[in-house]
Amino acid sequence: MTAYTATVTVRLKRGVLDPEAETTQRSLERLGFDLEDLRSADRFEIDVDAESADDAAERADEMAERLLANPTIHDYEVEVTER
Amino acid sequence: MTAYTATVTVRLKRGVLDPEAETTQRSLERLGFDLEDLRSADRFEIDVDAESADDAAERADEMAERLLANPTIHDYEVEVTER
Repeated sequence: MTAYTATVTVRLKRGVLDPEAETTQRSLERLGFDLEDLRSADRFEIDVDAESADDAAERADEMAERLLANPTIHDYEVEVTER
Repeated sequence: MTAYTATVTVRLKRGVLDPEAETTQRSLERLGFDLEDLRSADRFEIDVDAESADDAAERADEMAERLLANPTIHDYEVEVTER
């Protein structure tokens, strides 16, 4: 068994309204910052012990499918590193 | 001017309680997943036009200092890529 950290990034799908990101962008603009666009995402860093990086990625993928992401509105991506 | 995306990742400092992450971890365990630890973070992807990658990073850094992160409880990191 090897110790891995699987990072799951959960984003709203293109076209889904994100009022939090819009508010953040407007607040930055009000502070004088110049930006074209701002998107927000949730990031989960999950420490797992697994046989291989592929095994760790597969489990993180299943966690995203079952709990971390809502497939109706979210896309997600999984990245695995040894820790 | 070049088009960059600056990604700002905002994490709670070590030692700051994160009840949301704890609840997520417990829910995953209740679903039968085996994990050692789970940390959550906020990720902002900010599109900016800037003279250089360094300039884009500096502006994203200032956005984090002034609005995106609370220095009392958060650490943050900035990563810049061309878009």
